[in-house]
Amino acid sequence: MKRFSFNQATAPNWPTPDLIAGCVAAGVGTVGLWREQTQAYGLANTVRALRAAELAVSSLCRGGFFDRADWFDDNRRALDEAAALGAPVLVLVCGGLPAGSRDLPAARAYVADAIAMLAPAAIEHGVTLAIEPLHPMFAADRCVISTLGQALDIAEDHPVGAVGVMVDTYHVWWDDQVYQHLQRAGPRIAGFQLADWATPLPAGVLTGRVLPGGGRIDLARLWAAVDEAGYTGPVEVEIFNEQLWARDGAAILADTIAAYESVRLDPHRLSFG
Amino acid sequence: MKRFSFNQATAPNWPTPDLIAGCVAAGVGTVGLWREQTQAYGLANTVRALRAAELAVSSLCRGGFFDRADWFDDNRRALDEAAALGAPVLVLVCGGLPAGSRDLPAARAYVADAIAMLAPAAIEHGVTLAIEPLHPMFAADRCVISTLGQALDIAEDHPVGAVGVMVDTYHVWWDDQVYQHLQRAGPRIAGFQLADWATPLPAGVLTGRVLPGGGRIDLARLWAAVDEAGYTGPVEVEIFNEQLWARDGAAILADTIAAYESVRLDPHRLSFG
Repeated sequence: MKRFSFNQATAPNWPTPDLIAGCVAAGVGTVGLWREQTQAYGLANTVRALRAAELAVSSLCRGGFFDRADWFDDNRRALDEAAALGAPVLVLVCGGLPAGSRDLPAARAYVADAIAMLAPAAIEHGVTLAIEPLHPMFAADRCVISTLGQALDIAEDHPVGAVGVMVDTYHVWWDDQVYQHLQRAGPRIAGFQLADWATPLPAGVLTGRVLPGGGRIDLARLWAAVDEAGYTGPVEVEIFNEQLWARDGAAILADTIAAYESVRLDPHRLSFG
Repeated sequence: MKRFSFNQATAPNWPTPDLIAGCVAAGVGTVGLWREQTQAYGLANTVRALRAAELAVSSLCRGGFFDRADWFDDNRRALDEAAALGAPVLVLVCGGLPAGSRDLPAARAYVADAIAMLAPAAIEHGVTLAIEPLHPMFAADRCVISTLGQALDIAEDHPVGAVGVMVDTYHVWWDDQVYQHLQRAGPRIAGFQLADWATPLPAGVLTGRVLPGGGRIDLARLWAAVDEAGYTGPVEVEIFNEQLWARDGAAILADTIAAYESVRLDPHRLSFG
């Protein structure tokens, strides 16, 4: 369990202080936080509660959204929050096509420029910007960065500590180049998230994820490849799923831990270790 | 209009003889057919009606489904039907992960083997097998071939006339390597289909397509690249959309023609020509 991190989005209705207490009770030492929940409870309150509980923070979600007018100031604030929380990583959701545009290559070039503008602030704050490629089904409306290869093309223009990648199994599993990309990524891997793929996808497709082991992704193999690439950091579980969300926070956490363990102990993973 | 082809799946409730009469009335000279509809009206009836109307067939949908037990015999029958209909191309939907499997690389290798087994029959029949890469959101349940690059890797093991690729804008638009793949494809492009991408996607995601121009894909640029690659064949419009399907066949056809023309006359396309 020492690498396990519970991402707050897996139980978004669990108030932050309850989530912190629940993690301590379950022996979980690391959490992934979201800005929405941190702001709801208050940044100072969250920092205080984390310290009292001796919980580490693996990442803060979400910066990016470069298609919004106030993206620069908002990302500076997100970096401030990440630094205050002790989160080593700010996860970037890069935004979709700008309104009215169909020019995907231009939107991708724009994201690279925006990240270059933000990188000095990340270095100042000691927080790594983690570009998260999102599944191609989100290319129009959420994130024009669709593969780990594209994320690395952008990240590699910057120091390793400034810009890295967030590897989320749900977004990259289908890619026949993902194993090459992971090897190439090496120290650029700023975070790793487990989520599984089940069909049929629900309307809007955002909440189609299921707990690790419940879907069709070879999570053990991807995890092995992430470790092979040299990553030794936290392994977050982050699941957007309406049915899961409807449950009690502590019950969600217990099932999430069990799902994580089932993948961690998969012999397929160990055979690559 | 001389390259336009109306794919039957755009108006699946329009009985085949009515569709044929409707195409003739609208000045459409080419159709893309589906096996389900052809069987419903009868193969011999369909062949007779096409001849009487002097309609050409651009492609027959669908072969493939290599994850089904009877795939070999069923694909032989599909080739017989394509040959009888004068369809130069049989479109392959290659099938998802086999039941219980998470091994995507193995599933992809299996598809390559299945196509190798089928290629001699395609040559015998004078029908090209067109591997259609499906959007990565279908990788688990419909088609493990997710990019044009993967389709070409398989096709290039065979003579050009035996195995090619079907380029459907809906499936490939997000790929940052699509323009390189099209150039590489050259004479492997066995067919080209226009469909546009709109969000939010509906549950199950199959029927999320919209008429050309109604979504976020730079169709004109993709069309230009297909032409640049040397393709001079029919341009099908194939839209799965519940709202469209609910309408009268002739009205669907009229709107489909108008949508096709709006892309055909896009100056962005001509600037690449």
